[in-house]
Formats: sequence, structure tokens, C-alpha cells
Amino acid sequence: MKEKIKIVTIGGGSSYTPELMEGFIRRYQELPVGEIWLVDVDAGKEKVEIVSRLAQRMWDAAGYPVQVHVTLDRREALPGADFVTTQFRVGQLEARIKDERIPSLHGMLGQETNGAGGIFKAFRTIPVIGQIIENMRELCPDAWLINFTNPSGMITEAAIRKFGWKKTIGLCNVPGIAEMKEPENIGCRPGELVYQFAGLNHFHWHRVWDKDGNEVTEKLLEHINERNGGTPVNIYQAPFPMELLHSMKMIPCGYHRYYYNADEMLAHSMEEFRKGGTRAEQMHRVEKELFDLYRNPELKEKPEQLGKRGGAYYSDTACECISAIYNNKQKRMTVSTENRGAISCLPADSIVEVSSLISAKGAEPVAWGEMPPAERGWLQVMKAMEECVIEAAITGDYGLALEAFTLNPLIPGGKEGKKVLDELLVAHETYLPQFADKIAELKAAGVETEDEVVRDLLRRGL
Amino acid sequence: MKEKIKIVTIGGGSSYTPELMEGFIRRYQELPVGEIWLVDVDAGKEKVEIVSRLAQRMWDAAGYPVQVHVTLDRREALPGADFVTTQFRVGQLEARIKDERIPSLHGMLGQETNGAGGIFKAFRTIPVIGQIIENMRELCPDAWLINFTNPSGMITEAAIRKFGWKKTIGLCNVPGIAEMKEPENIGCRPGELVYQFAGLNHFHWHRVWDKDGNEVTEKLLEHINERNGGTPVNIYQAPFPMELLHSMKMIPCGYHRYYYNADEMLAHSMEEFRKGGTRAEQMHRVEKELFDLYRNPELKEKPEQLGKRGGAYYSDTACECISAIYNNKQKRMTVSTENRGAISCLPADSIVEVSSLISAKGAEPVAWGEMPPAERGWLQVMKAMEECVIEAAITGDYGLALEAFTLNPLIPGGKEGKKVLDELLVAHETYLPQFADKIAELKAAGVETEDEVVRDLLRRGL
Amino acid sequence: MKEKIKIVTIGGGSSYTPELMEGFIRRYQELPVGEIWLVDVDAGKEKVEIVSRLAQRMWDAAGYPVQVHVTLDRREALPGADFVTTQFRVGQLEARIKDERIPSLHGMLGQETNGAGGIFKAFRTIPVIGQIIENMRELCPDAWLINFTNPSGMITEAAIRKFGWKKTIGLCNVPGIAEMKEPENIGCRPGELVYQFAGLNHFHWHRVWDKDGNEVTEKLLEHINERNGGTPVNIYQAPFPMELLHSMKMIPCGYHRYYYNADEMLAHSMEEFRKGGTRAEQMHRVEKELFDLYRNPELKEKPEQLGKRGGAYYSDTACECISAIYNNKQKRMTVSTENRGAISCLPADSIVEVSSLISAKGAEPVAWGEMPPAERGWLQVMKAMEECVIEAAITGDYGLALEAFTLNPLIPGGKEGKKVLDELLVAHETYLPQFADKIAELKAAGVETEDEVVRDLLRRGL
Amino acid sequence: MKEKIKIVTIGGGSSYTPELMEGFIRRYQELPVGEIWLVDVDAGKEKVEIVSRLAQRMWDAAGYPVQVHVTLDRREALPGADFVTTQFRVGQLEARIKDERIPSLHGMLGQETNGAGGIFKAFRTIPVIGQIIENMRELCPDAWLINFTNPSGMITEAAIRKFGWKKTIGLCNVPGIAEMKEPENIGCRPGELVYQFAGLNHFHWHRVWDKDGNEVTEKLLEHINERNGGTPVNIYQAPFPMELLHSMKMIPCGYHRYYYNADEMLAHSMEEFRKGGTRAEQMHRVEKELFDLYRNPELKEKPEQLGKRGGAYYSDTACECISAIYNNKQKRMTVSTENRGAISCLPADSIVEVSSLISAKGAEPVAWGEMPPAERGWLQVMKAMEECVIEAAITGDYGLALEAFTLNPLIPGGKEGKKVLDELLVAHETYLPQFADKIAELKAAGVETEDEVVRDLLRRGL
Repeated sequence: MKEKIKIVTIGGGSSYTPELMEGFIRRYQELPVGEIWLVDVDAGKEKVEIVSRLAQRMWDAAGYPVQVHVTLDRREALPGADFVTTQFRVGQLEARIKDERIPSLHGMLGQETNGAGGIFKAFRTIPVIGQIIENMRELCPDAWLINFTNPSGMITEAAIRKFGWKKTIGLCNVPGIAEMKEPENIGCRPGELVYQFAGLNHFHWHRVWDKDGNEVTEKLLEHINERNGGTPVNIYQAPFPMELLHSMKMIPCGYHRYYYNADEMLAHSMEEFRKGGTRAEQMHRVEKELFDLYRNPELKEKPEQLGKRGGAYYSDTACECISAIYNNKQKRMTVSTENRGAISCLPADSIVEVSSLISAKGAEPVAWGEMPPAERGWLQVMKAMEECVIEAAITGDYGLALEAFTLNPLIPGGKEGKKVLDELLVAHETYLPQFADKIAELKAAGVETEDEVVRDLLRRGL
Repeated sequence: MKEKIKIVTIGGGSSYTPELMEGFIRRYQELPVGEIWLVDVDAGKEKVEIVSRLAQRMWDAAGYPVQVHVTLDRREALPGADFVTTQFRVGQLEARIKDERIPSLHGMLGQETNGAGGIFKAFRTIPVIGQIIENMRELCPDAWLINFTNPSGMITEAAIRKFGWKKTIGLCNVPGIAEMKEPENIGCRPGELVYQFAGLNHFHWHRVWDKDGNEVTEKLLEHINERNGGTPVNIYQAPFPMELLHSMKMIPCGYHRYYYNADEMLAHSMEEFRKGGTRAEQMHRVEKELFDLYRNPELKEKPEQLGKRGGAYYSDTACECISAIYNNKQKRMTVSTENRGAISCLPADSIVEVSSLISAKGAEPVAWGEMPPAERGWLQVMKAMEECVIEAAITGDYGLALEAFTLNPLIPGGKEGKKVLDELLVAHETYLPQFADKIAELKAAGVETEDEVVRDLLRRGL
Repeated sequence: MKEKIKIVTIGGGSSYTPELMEGFIRRYQELPVGEIWLVDVDAGKEKVEIVSRLAQRMWDAAGYPVQVHVTLDRREALPGADFVTTQFRVGQLEARIKDERIPSLHGMLGQETNGAGGIFKAFRTIPVIGQIIENMRELCPDAWLINFTNPSGMITEAAIRKFGWKKTIGLCNVPGIAEMKEPENIGCRPGELVYQFAGLNHFHWHRVWDKDGNEVTEKLLEHINERNGGTPVNIYQAPFPMELLHSMKMIPCGYHRYYYNADEMLAHSMEEFRKGGTRAEQMHRVEKELFDLYRNPELKEKPEQLGKRGGAYYSDTACECISAIYNNKQKRMTVSTENRGAISCLPADSIVEVSSLISAKGAEPVAWGEMPPAERGWLQVMKAMEECVIEAAITGDYGLALEAFTLNPLIPGGKEGKKVLDELLVAHETYLPQFADKIAELKAAGVETEDEVVRDLLRRGL
Repeated sequence: MKEKIKIVTIGGGSSYTPELMEGFIRRYQELPVGEIWLVDVDAGKEKVEIVSRLAQRMWDAAGYPVQVHVTLDRREALPGADFVTTQFRVGQLEARIKDERIPSLHGMLGQETNGAGGIFKAFRTIPVIGQIIENMRELCPDAWLINFTNPSGMITEAAIRKFGWKKTIGLCNVPGIAEMKEPENIGCRPGELVYQFAGLNHFHWHRVWDKDGNEVTEKLLEHINERNGGTPVNIYQAPFPMELLHSMKMIPCGYHRYYYNADEMLAHSMEEFRKGGTRAEQMHRVEKELFDLYRNPELKEKPEQLGKRGGAYYSDTACECISAIYNNKQKRMTVSTENRGAISCLPADSIVEVSSLISAKGAEPVAWGEMPPAERGWLQVMKAMEECVIEAAITGDYGLALEAFTLNPLIPGGKEGKKVLDELLVAHETYLPQFADKIAELKAAGVETEDEVVRDLLRRGL
């Protein structure tokens, strides 16, 4: 590889960017970054500029000769890029508010990457990933695409299978959190245990072995409902049903609570909604506070408050992955990559989230083998749903979108689900050109949401 | 085969038996029945005796020299049997009342073969099928087991895969109803179209072609929500969402309404429950009326009223299957049999319900090939759930039972589902010896149902 | 379908044509043929004209108003065709002489559909099938392609998978011969037993059951080495090794002798070669005699001598298949069609030869399930080889051709095999435009055959 | 793990043992060996004693407190073992002489791990591995079985799948040789490139990437026919056909020459046989020389001459694997282990030889994904053959043995192959109790070999 590497970050105005900078700064000796381009959309101009100034101050304070550029034109940033990282949110937090509020209004889970919200996040994001890849093909055909954008698994599947960008790796901080937090619960240090992960993004399990080769999975399970159980803090910690977990003999990820504790999670989500605020709305406040901090020209490092956002280890995962590629480390990491038989109950060309070796040639998944029947069923139904979502996101096929909704375990089949689908389509019109005809038809039929917050956003053109 | 065949019907006291008799009488020329044994349990003594007397009158009136025997001892009936048919209900209608009322009490679908009720029907029935097969192995090792008992697919899977009785065929009347009712909707006669079915029992789809080889599936779909759409009359006919069906390009079975129209079906089930009666309780009344008719010594044929019970074509299917085996017909029928690759997304040794050729060597499934993604996901999750249910039914493994509950698309994950599981275990204690330890534990912890009807049944030892 | 059907036979000048006519005449009441077009190439002009005159005399003698047309221009014949049958031989018998003599010269089996000869027959034929399908797409887009041309399995796979003509069925007379000949060996009549076939064209096995459902495969195996064992007469009848057959518990087809009795079959082939004649050369003589008979204007029926050619039941199979489609018979026949999971160890989209139901919608394979390990290995290696052959036939990829040669169990790996490949490429230059560059390179390097017969054919431009 | 580990080496009298000792000595700091037990059979008493004395001198010279024990009773050695390594040869070199000479006599390849010889090596060895595992189950139930005994893949498959010893890892030096030798051909150092291997033992391919992630497989292929191409020196180096290799785009292993260069390899083997010596007989001489050296009480290190035996890096591989387990290294090595989907065209529970991570929990295979068609066919046919061999080795099923012979690509189907099978059975009678009945039958029928060398061995009771 080149002596100095060029990083382009799409969605560079994210409040996470300082963490990413810190990750690069800490690894500068092994990962000689030359220039960093933060790219964002017009609507994010102010934020990306604030962030870029902070980023430059951080690099300067570290004493490394790295230039941070900012642009609203992706095509200006991409030429010569070695790594393109994506952390953008189509439609900003307002879109998330809709994803969370509209299902809630109909008594369903309002959540960003699960249920109806996760499906719509994919609908909005996948076409944009397609456009980014089109630009990359022209302007930086050898670059790696390191995707953090959620729903990370579906985005990665679209990038690799649908848009043909083989050099894509999908990242998530959830496996890393487990590896960092769990060991101390049984008196071990991070790095001492062997972790094997398999499943889908936000829907994986892991098994763990100690340094003598003894499986410690069940020991760790005993602590899963404790404060430091290894679940990301942004997920409501309904206690997992232990008889279920002892039957599967694997450790679920925090997001499994939406499925294994569906009633409590729904109740909690509804309660937040009724209290007048969804998670997106809380984030809005957190973001505002962060950007107030970022503005301060004296700030030259990542502020502590960022850690509370729930994305712990995210940038560590990203920087480590980039370094593993650059330095041909063959490092074991859990990433979203092509299955190739690693999880035998899923198609070989599916994207799965699985323990892999990361080297200059990309990710090589470690074979997991067979899943027990129940988990096999869960994975297969989730993957089937993902396939419908991805295809519908590209083609705008309403029937497929409805199939995905009906199949999704968090959306009850029937009229109410269809209503949520229709209202979300109309509410997100701006970002769903592929569904334009159907949306026109729905609007003509009078479909609109009754949620006042969403109506207000729409009135304001957001 | 022998010149005169011997039929043993387990659960012979069923109100369906007269229809079965009629089917045999109509086919006597090609299927020379010699003797028929109706077997039932002590609790069904009165009913099986009423039915056997009617059955004998029917044969006598037809002028065929067939002897109808009745016994409460299976071992007396089995020696020399050529075909053993099973149509029993462990725990009689009272068990069904519990299966329907307890989930309803917690706001879930109360239904006999879907959701929690279907799982518990399997829990009660599978061990008994195991005992029947044990007797058959000793007393009639060459007999065919023709299973009508629901949930027919899981029972057949247990019989073949778990208890090793390869000569088992699982039957259901639902495919036959579609083949009889649908053609006239597009101006055709039954038998003129080629039907291909694939899926699981009560969870299959079909595609249809006319005599020129043109697919008429979509034409038939247009009529699916009409009165004569082809769905069994015992299922509430919420109109299928047409956009969904046109996307899948296959015709679902009536039971798919529980999934595709989940909210309406649940609402209807809850309404019936609140009105003070479940389907089981309605059946109780219908049965009582039927047996009043059967008692009449002048009755010498199947009474018309039987047709209304919802089991139309059931016995036709059974008699036709038996005749196809006896006469080596290679007849195309839709039955539950070993997959062997016919549905490629399911394990080769799974039991599936699929168009097959029935001959003296049994059922040969016709290869269907691949399913579209959404239907693949549905089938895989349902089959995974079935596997957990069957294994739990045999081993009494509570963790697996909970996995099945959590995975079942009609049971919301979490506390409420677990509560229903626990209450059903306690309510069905008499018929669930495999779960005895867990039930004792639950009772010690004070688990009991609040439903007055069920409490009354339990008080009365039913 | 139309009231009068139009048949187009590509390679109509074949000596088999009178048998085909007889098959149609015999079925005229159920299969109302209106017109028949015999198509052939310039080099076959004389033969196709002789045959067409005989065909017309046969129809006239039968008293049916059918017109037999002859043309050297495929495009003239195709418009409006209902069924296109293919029975042509690219390069006529001279090409077969090369396929048989050149391998023999290097001590390898010289045979038409196995080993090097079979591969080259595919190389010559597949591009032509591609052109025929191109014409059909334009001129008769609804027609069925009924392929008899060998190697029938690979041709059918190319037609369906590579050229996209889904309405293709591949036929072979070998399964039919077994069904006709074997039953009498155990005192049964044809039609009384249930036959299940699975495998590839000229490489399949079957199992058989009697009318009581008892398997009689092993009983039939006892007679396999007798004169009437069920093997086509054109294959040298080296006695099968019985311990092998009893281990597999299936009945191989006659062509399996080339693999199970490889040394004897090779020895016999070499002996024929040394005696100065290959099978192709014997055929040349037989054909000459047949056409002398066909010329006789008094001949108005299929002459008895035709039966000796080895293609018994070929036309019966073809006519029966066409009638099963036309009359929507759902008739059980063994044909080459898409696997769809019927043989679980082969890819779902592979073409396999398997018991199927033939109706207006085409062939539906009956699921066979798993093969025992050894036969699984045989099938998989043969299918892999076929895939290489088909791909090389279309692309002219020499490396793939060499992979196919190396993998073929009847061609020893290494220099000699490569020599045979190179000599055959040069010898068949006229019919292998896809390999033109490689052939030029080989000729420049001085590759030519030493066989005098082949050199003479080449000198004469054949 | 324990502080001091106990190694038991079955077949400890092998001439390789000094290399193994050297490997342990070199790793003593990371792998604290406490005691080593060399186990052998009565016939190897003298050799194992010579070797054990040399081994003890080596440890003493190194200054480490390790005790080398010797025993002819496996049960004495096993208690408390941590690692059991196997490097024995049932029937010593005399058995190899038979494996090589009898096929040669009939014009077939006479080789130790390929063709008829490899099959018989498996027949003799697998039952002994079964007995060793039976002892281990009783005496050292937690020990790892590190198998070097050939045919290593089949032995490992028998150990894991048939005898249920999950803690088995099969080793071979061939992948290691490639990784050590190839890089310098393109100006790189060992360890700098990423190697991915997949296939079966002695039948695998690899692809290679450089530190920038660029595939260098084709560059390495250019050097494969050079002296330092990476093939073990004990294999005759017929030049690989380059067009074949460029088509597959993978690097075959040296043993592939027996298949891709079958004619030259056979010719070379026959020439050696005719010259009066097989490879086994050459080994006999080499061994004799080595033991003459080992006897010298002054010798305190591995003599240089050992390197010429063809087993380079064997012990390095073994010691490294043991250390990777002991130290939980997660080291990438190519070993024979359970497939678990890593090679998608082979059964999940097959043993494959594939790049894996070795840690305290054993081997985790890296997923390779799909093979191109030809290599898929090769792997599938070889694995099917292996399955027949393993099953026949355990059951003594002659039909299956014949199926394996017929399927093996290096044994021509038919009479001659059967003759070789029969003669080898009789020749190896002492070591094949599972085939006793068949051997008696063959002897009664007069089966015996005509080879004078083998007859002489048999006369001498070897």
C-alpha cells in the first residue's frame, strides 16, 4: 500500500467523528494517515464544519501532519481514497423520529434497526450506498468500503451482492463490547478468552472458551442480566429469560431482547413514546449538547460525554479493521462479510456477521457449522426478511415490502402492519424515490400519519 | 396384498367415522375391506359403541360382508392389520377447550393447530403415537400408518423420524378442498387442472396449470376471497391481503390467514372467547347433535349434518390414499411425507406436505424446487419450531418448549408467552407425563389458570 | 392446444425417422398431427429426401391427412411449430468415426457418448443447439424442444441453463428398454412394476418395486448379465461385477459398463479398432443398407431391420412424451430435466435424468433423495465434468476442455489425454469455430492424427 | 493446562522421532514437556529402543529435565497423557512393499497413499486407531490425538466421525513445505504471504495473497515446475500441465501429479518397479542407514541425513500444533479437521484439510466457499471414495471395498482392479481381521500374488 493513506468519511458530520479521529491518532505509528476527507450533505453543512475543525485541532495537538478536509461534494473527496468509511444517516435524526413514532402510534416497536424502523432505514440508505459505490467505481476503484451505517448487515449485503463491491466490510460495535465487558465477570481479562460469533448484524450469538480450551459460555450466561453483562447501554435491559438461554447454550446479543423479551421491550418503547419522547428525540438532545462542546475552539480531544451515546468501541473497531487490512494482520474480528458456508444454514452468498480474520485480502470467515434448530429458524427467517427488504429497497416493489413486513417477527401480520408500512412510505417520501409511484397512489388515497410530531416535521419539510 | 384387508381405526369413536365408512363402502369394489376395528379409550366407550353400531348398519345396508369390531384395547385390534388409521384426540374436546381458552386469556390466538394450542396438541399426541407404533412393531409390523390426527405434519414427522415407522403417511383435507372448489371459479372442472402443492401441513402453497400448460395461479388468486375460494369453512375468512399474494405468486392455504391476517384473526378469536365460546365449545354442541342422530337405529347412512363439521373430503382423502396403496395406483395426492429434497430449502429428512405419487411403495414426493425468499423464511422458521416441539414432546425438555414458544410467529416473545406455556403445562398435566417434573415445580410455584371454564374442567378431573 | 399440431424434426434425414413416423401414426387418434417438417443440412439432402418420401408413403398408407415437408432451411420449417424434435448429428457419421478412432489410437476408449468421443460430440452439438434455440425464440416462441440428440443430458443442460429454453425435455431410450425387458425376468409384465430412475443421461440407476410395494431390485439384479437383462443391444455386454451391484443395491444402466467394466470395455473397443472397424464404421454399413431399403417406392412401413440399430423404443419414448404434453397426461417417464432437488447431491439447476411426471406444463421430477456414498461420488464427478464440457463448448476455453478431459474417469490424466484432446480439436476443425484460435495454434505446432482413416476423411474434406 | 505436559508417541520407533524431539527441544521454553513415552509393537522393539536412547541423549544434551520412556504396552504409557501423537505403520515397511508391488504387477500405480496402496494402508490402520481411542477413552480421556499417520485424512475422519474422538487433529507436512519454499520464487520471505488452503489430505489446493492483498497465485504457478516449486521431494516431479493449472487458478499440491500427470507418474512407478525396487524398498535402505547412525552413542542431535526422507517440516508442524493448543495461540495452520461448511461442496461433518486457527479449543476451519466445477468434482469423488474406504475398513464389507476401488480415479474399473483388491487382501491377511471371512474365501478360491518379493515376505511371515 501507499506510504500515506487517504481516508474518506461519508457522513463526516456525525457526532462520532471525534472518536474516529482519536482511533486514528492512537494508531498513527502503524497506520500512517495522510489526509482525511469528511463528506456530508447540504443539510449537515454546519455540523460537518464544526466537526472538521475539532478534528483538525485534535490532529494538530497530537503533532501529526494530517490534513482534515471537508466537502459537500462526494466526488471531490473520493479520488485516490484508500478507505471510504460510511456513517451517514439519510434524513438525519428527523427520519429516525418517524421510524420510531409511526410504528409506536400503532402499538408496535419503534426502534431504529429492528422492526418497521429498521426496514425503513434500509429503504432510505441502500439506494444511497448504491450511488456511493457508483462513484467509487469511477473515482477510487481500489478503495475499501468500511461500512458503519445501520442496518449494517443489510447495507453490506446490498453493497456486496447487489452493487458488486466485493471490498466491503460491515462493522458493528456490539461484538467488541461483549469481548471487552464479559471476561471480567468470570475473573478474566479481555483478550484472554477465545470468542466465536455467528449470526447476522444485531442478531448474532457467541460461544466462548478459556485459555485451556474449556467452554465458559454457560458461566458467562450467568452474568448476562447484570449491569455489566456486555450489552450496549442504549438498549433497555429487560432481563433475558434464562431457561431459554440455557437451552440454546449460546450468548445472544443485546438486540435479541427485542425478540426474546418482545413484550417488555414493546412496553418500554410504548412508555417512552407516551412520555413524549422516543430514543431519536433523546439523541437529538445529546447531539445538541455534543455539538455545543465541539464548537469550543479550546477543545482538542474527544470529550468524555461522547462515550455515553451508545456507540462505544465503534471507532476502535473501525480503526482496528482498517489497520488490520493495511498491515495484513490476519486479526480475528467479528464483521459482516460473505458467508461462504461459515454458517451452514444460510446461503453461501449471504452476508453474515461472524468471527473472521482480517488481512490485506479482506475478511475470511471462520466456519461455525450448524446452528441448533431454534436458532437456525431465527436466522433463516431474519435473513429471508432481509433479502426482501434489500430487493424492495432497490426496486421499489411494494409487494416485497409487504412480504418483509409480514415476515418480520416484530410486526404483527395484517392490516395494522400494512397501515404502518403505508404511513412510513408517505412520511419518508423525500428519501424514497424508488417508491414514488406507490407513494403517490397512497397519498391519493388519503394515507397520512396522525402523529402530531411527525406531521409537524413534514410541514417543516423535514 | 391379501384378498381381504383389515383396517384398524384408532380414535374410532370420532364423529367422523361414518364418513370414513361411507368412503370405504363407495370403494368396496376396488378395495375389498374384510374387517374394521374401531379402537378408543375408556372415556370414549359410549361414543365408539354408538358409532360402531351405525357403522355396522351402514355396511349391512350396503350389502357387503364387512364386520365392524369395537375395542378399548389397542392390542386386541392390531394383529394382522393392513392399515392403521389414526384420528384420535388425546384429552378429548376438553383438552381443546384449554388449548383455546388459556392463550385467549392472555390475549393470544386460541386455536387448535396454530400457536400455543397447536404446540400443546403435539405435546399430548406425540407420545401416544410413539406407543401406538411400539404396539404396531410387535403386532402388525407390515401395516401402513395413515395419520389424520392433528397437528398432522408434526405427528407424521415424529412417527417417521423419531419412532422410525417409515410406512407412515400424513393426511389432511385442506389440499383436496382447494382442488375441488377452486376450478369452478375460473370455469373449469375438478381434475382438469394440474395442482402442485408444497409446504408444511396447514402451511402450504400451491400453483396451478391448465390443460394447455398455462399457469392459472394468478387467475385463481383473484377469487381467493370469495365465498367459494377453497378455504375450509371452519376458518374465519378474513380477506387475504392481495398485494401480498400477488407478490408471492402462489396460493396460500386457508390457515395462512393466521399469519397473513394475524391481527384480524386474533381479534376474531378474542371476540369469540369474550362472547363465551371458543371453537372447541361450538364443536362440543355439534358433536352432541351428531351423536344424537347416530343413536337412531334407523339411521343407515352418513347424515348430512356431518358435512358441516369442517372436515370435508377428509375421509375421501384417507380412503383414496389407502386404495392408491392397495391398488398400486401411482395416484397424485398431497400428503405429509419425507422431503428428500422436494423442497430444497428444508432438510432432506423433514416431513413436508407436498404433491406426491401414492403407490404400493408409499409416497414419492414431486420435486418443487426453490421457494422465493419470503416463503422460504416462513417455511424454515415453522419447520425449526416444529423440530423443537417434537423434540420437547418426546423429552419433556422445558427449555426447548420455551424456544418453540418464542420462535412461534403467533406467540409474542417474553413473559406473557412463558406464562401461557406454564399455565398450559399445568392445565394438561394428566396428558403430559414427560413434563411431570417441570409441572410439579410450576405447581409448587403456584402456577394456575384464571379462566373459570378451565378451572371447572380441572376440578372435574377432565 | 391447437387442433392440428405441427412437428419439426431437425436431423430429419436420420434413418430413425421411419420409426418416429410409425410412433405418430399409431397415436394419431390422441395426437392429431397436421404437418411434419423434416429439416436437414446440405450434406444430408439425399438422405432426408429419401426418408421424407418413405414417411409420406407411411402416412398415406395409414390413411391420415398428414403432409410431410422437407427443407434444408430451418427457418422455413419453424414458424408455428408446436414441437421441435432434434435427432441430428453434427458432422454425420464421419465425425463419429473420428471420435472413436483417435482415442483408440492412443489406447483409450473410442465411444460415442462416453470418454473423449462424448465430450467432442458435445463440443460440436451444443453451439448448434444454441442456434436452433435462437431461431425458435424468433419463429416459434411457444414450441417445446424435444431433444433426442446425444449426449442428450449435456445438450439438454445447455438448452435449459445456458440458452434459457425452459421448455426443453431430453429423451433417451435406455430407461424404457429396462422397463420393457426386465419384468419378464422375474415373471412380471411391463407396466406392472414401479420403476424409479435417477442419475444422469447414460449414467443412471434404478430401483424397482412390485405391485405389493416390495422392492424387487435385487431380484432383477440377478438377471442383469443375461441376454435379456435390459441393456441396449449396441453396448458390448461385459458381465457386470455382481459384488459391486449388490453393494449399491441399485440397477445400473448399460452404459455403466464403461466404468464398472472399464478394462474389458476398453479391450473390446481396442479389438474392434484393430480389426479395422469402429462402431461408427459398422453403423455406416447398417445405414447404407437401410437407405437402400427406404428407397424402395413399394415400402410403406418401418422395415424390420431398423430395430437392430440399437435405438429401440426411441421414437416410442418421443411420441409418448409429446402426447403426454399435448394431452396433459401426468404420465410417469424418465427424462432429462431440471433437478430442483430431486437428486439432493447435485445442484438444483443441474439437468438430471430422473423419473418425472409429464404433463402440459412439462416435466416434474420425482424426488429421489440421497445417493449412497459411492454413487454420490460418481454422479458428482460426472456432473462436474459435464459442466466443464458445456462451458468449454460455448466459450471455446481450452483450459476447461483440458479440465474436463483430466476429470473424465475414462481418460487417463496427463500427456496422452492432452494429445487426444489436441488431435480431436484439429480433426473436427470444421465444426468447432469456438475453438478456432486454439486449433490454429495446434496446427501451427504440427498437431495432426496418425490414423490413416481419419487422415483420409480430412483429405476428403469430411 | 498442567505445568508439565506428557507426550505419548505411538509408533515411537519411527526414524522420524529424532526430528520430533528436536522440535520439542527447540520449543521447550513455551512448551514445557515433562515426560515423553515412545510406544511401539513387539516387531519394532529394537528400533524403538535405539531411538529412545538417542532421544534421551538429545534432551540431556539440551540440558532440559525430560525423561524419555519406552514401552511395548500402550496401556502403560497412556495414563495422564496430554497429547498422543501417532506415527505408526501397521505392518512396517513390509506392508508398504506389498501395497506398492501388487498393484504394479497389474500395471497400476504402486504408491503409499494414493490408489490401491492408500486404500489398504487405511484398511490396516483404521481399526488400530479405533483401539488406541478405546484405550484413550479409558486412560486419558482429556488428551488430544495428534495424528501424523497416513493416510492422515481418512485416519482423522475415522477417529472423529466413527470413533467419536473430537479432540483429534490430523497433520501433514505438505502445506508447510509450500509455505516455506514458494515465497522465495517470487522474491518474498516465508510468513509474508497469506496462504489459504482447502481440500483433502494429499489432495488440496491453495491460493496466495501478498501483503497488499493482491493475489499472487498465478505468479507462484509460473514456478511450480521448478526444482524449488514447493512439492515434497519424495514425489516424482513430472511437470504439471500448465494450461490445466491456469484454468483452475489454484496451486495444486504435489500429490495431484498422480492425477493430473497420471500417465507419467504410472510410467515412472512401473519403471521403478521393473528396475527391481519400489519406493518402500528404497526407504528400507534409507531407514537402515539412519538406524546405523542412531545407534552411535556419540550422536546427540538429529542427523542431517534424516532431512532427505521426504518428511521435512513434519515434526515442526506437529510441535507447532501442540504448542498452539497449549498456549492458546489462535495460530493459522493447515490441518485435517471437521469441515463445518468451510468447503461448501462437501458434507459438513467430513474431515477436510483446510486453513484453520489452532487454539486451546482445537481447530477452527476458515471458510473457503465454493470450488470451481472441476475441482468440486475431484473433491467430491475423492471424499466419496474415502467414505467407502473408511466404512469398509471398519466393517470388512467387501462390496464397499470394491466400490472404493472402482471409484478411485487411479484404479481402472473392472477385472484387474478386482484382482488387485483380492491379492492385497490375501497378502495383508495378518493385519485385516475385519476381512477374515472374505480372505478365507479368496484363499480357498486360490487367490495369491505372483510377485516373488511379496511371496517371499509372506513365506517369512511378514
